[in-house]
Amino acid sequence: MLGLFVGSEGTLGIATQAYLRLTPRPQDALTMLAYFCCLEDGGQCVSDIIAQGIIPAAMEMIDAMTLNCVEDCHKLGLKRDAGALLVVELDGPKSAIALEKAAVEQCAFNNKCLDIHWAADAQERMLIWKARKSAFGALGRLAPHGYVLDGVIPRSKLREAIAEIHSIGLKHDLPIANVYHAGDGNLHPCLLYNRDNEAEVRRVLLAGREILELCVNLGGTLSGEHGIGVEKLLEMKAAFCPSDLASMLSVREAFDPRLLFNPGKLIPTTKSCGESGARPLLRHQIGSC
Amino acid sequence: MLGLFVGSEGTLGIATQAYLRLTPRPQDALTMLAYFCCLEDGGQCVSDIIAQGIIPAAMEMIDAMTLNCVEDCHKLGLKRDAGALLVVELDGPKSAIALEKAAVEQCAFNNKCLDIHWAADAQERMLIWKARKSAFGALGRLAPHGYVLDGVIPRSKLREAIAEIHSIGLKHDLPIANVYHAGDGNLHPCLLYNRDNEAEVRRVLLAGREILELCVNLGGTLSGEHGIGVEKLLEMKAAFCPSDLASMLSVREAFDPRLLFNPGKLIPTTKSCGESGARPLLRHQIGSC
Repeated sequence: MLGLFVGSEGTLGIATQAYLRLTPRPQDALTMLAYFCCLEDGGQCVSDIIAQGIIPAAMEMIDAMTLNCVEDCHKLGLKRDAGALLVVELDGPKSAIALEKAAVEQCAFNNKCLDIHWAADAQERMLIWKARKSAFGALGRLAPHGYVLDGVIPRSKLREAIAEIHSIGLKHDLPIANVYHAGDGNLHPCLLYNRDNEAEVRRVLLAGREILELCVNLGGTLSGEHGIGVEKLLEMKAAFCPSDLASMLSVREAFDPRLLFNPGKLIPTTKSCGESGARPLLRHQIGSC
Repeated sequence: MLGLFVGSEGTLGIATQAYLRLTPRPQDALTMLAYFCCLEDGGQCVSDIIAQGIIPAAMEMIDAMTLNCVEDCHKLGLKRDAGALLVVELDGPKSAIALEKAAVEQCAFNNKCLDIHWAADAQERMLIWKARKSAFGALGRLAPHGYVLDGVIPRSKLREAIAEIHSIGLKHDLPIANVYHAGDGNLHPCLLYNRDNEAEVRRVLLAGREILELCVNLGGTLSGEHGIGVEKLLEMKAAFCPSDLASMLSVREAFDPRLLFNPGKLIPTTKSCGESGARPLLRHQIGSC
């Protein structure tokens, strides 16, 4: 039942107890910061690293817009003229890391990497992570509101997804800042807007839906880590056929015949799609269906 | 739904298509054969290796009875006076294997290992695996029938489980040959008997149930890889409370309201526990309830 319960978003019941599997701390970790002239090259580098059989602890990528915002905020000394910044963290036994380091560098060079920097010590490692972790906060300098998506794609499709998301932004005349958990194919494009501008909000909702449907069409999913909730009820219909959704609903009813647990979430029903959401963004989204 | 479907034993439907995640072949592999004076020491060695954070590709253990049977069959040159034979296979990058090799040897020596041999080449590695893989076949020399169990325990409880299984064998006057996927806590004790001896068959069924309930009481499960089917319907009641079983049944009914898919398997119902099984062993088992 574990696989069923995880991801059910409270619709099957509440976990009151959990046993966790602990894994040992890795012996060592090594963090690389690499610059590329565009996201597509960085994305291909990520795909190549995975194709080599290397599984880094993290591979995170941010685009030029985000990079410059972070640099404006924190003056970390990042290269402002790069098109993409990729952070790769390797961990494991020291000797295995040394082998992987060489292979990761080769993947970066093969994809026209502009510059590579390996953190020399814990202090430098912390600064590299600061660049990544402060990204969303820094984007507040560019627009009063941001709609962060959470789509997932197969890692081999990263280059294609990046190009398509860029086109969607152009089509709807919206700036999109890109922050990716590239290592696991989880994309967080952030659509920047002002919610007082109703036309812009409508474009944000359309573009958001197009990006999520793109992820599904590339063989991915609607959510990597933030779930469906009420926000993506409509997109669930793009990702799953009616009989899939009917199966999910009957499993839900097996645990909760009166649909009392976290009502209206996760599975689209006539009732849940007719309800109005609490957030302004969502009201627009639901109003458009 | 993946986690729900895997392990449902055909009761939720039939998979007609599957996408498989491939992992790259490891760069190298190294296989150790180690002898201990008793299973408990070998079991503690396995627990210690796991506690070190090492995850070997395989850790397999056989007892003295099985070891001597295999040697009778295949004349591999195994040490007949040992109480347990442990096979550990390490894989991954060459340099990481070298580190792990030293740690695994230390764990073996800490547990009064009698002798260690690392396979020098592919030929030797094949012979070590022959000793393990021919174990069940070789046991046919000792008795006309064998009832192989498939319980799982937390790996940290291996020493305790081995001692208890030995007691259960003594109590029911049954020889038990022990073949363990020790690395993942999956035990395959093989109860040796002759099915023409009805009293012996009854003792086999009782002992089998006691061993599976022992696994559950130690925090483990009824099956590691061979499933529940009709064989362990009664033991399901020891492993799960009535409301757990009721939840499983309602999930099953969500997919198959008339219980037509692989009927009578996996979840005990009045109907399924009253049916007679096809195998002689099972007829006895169900006759006893």
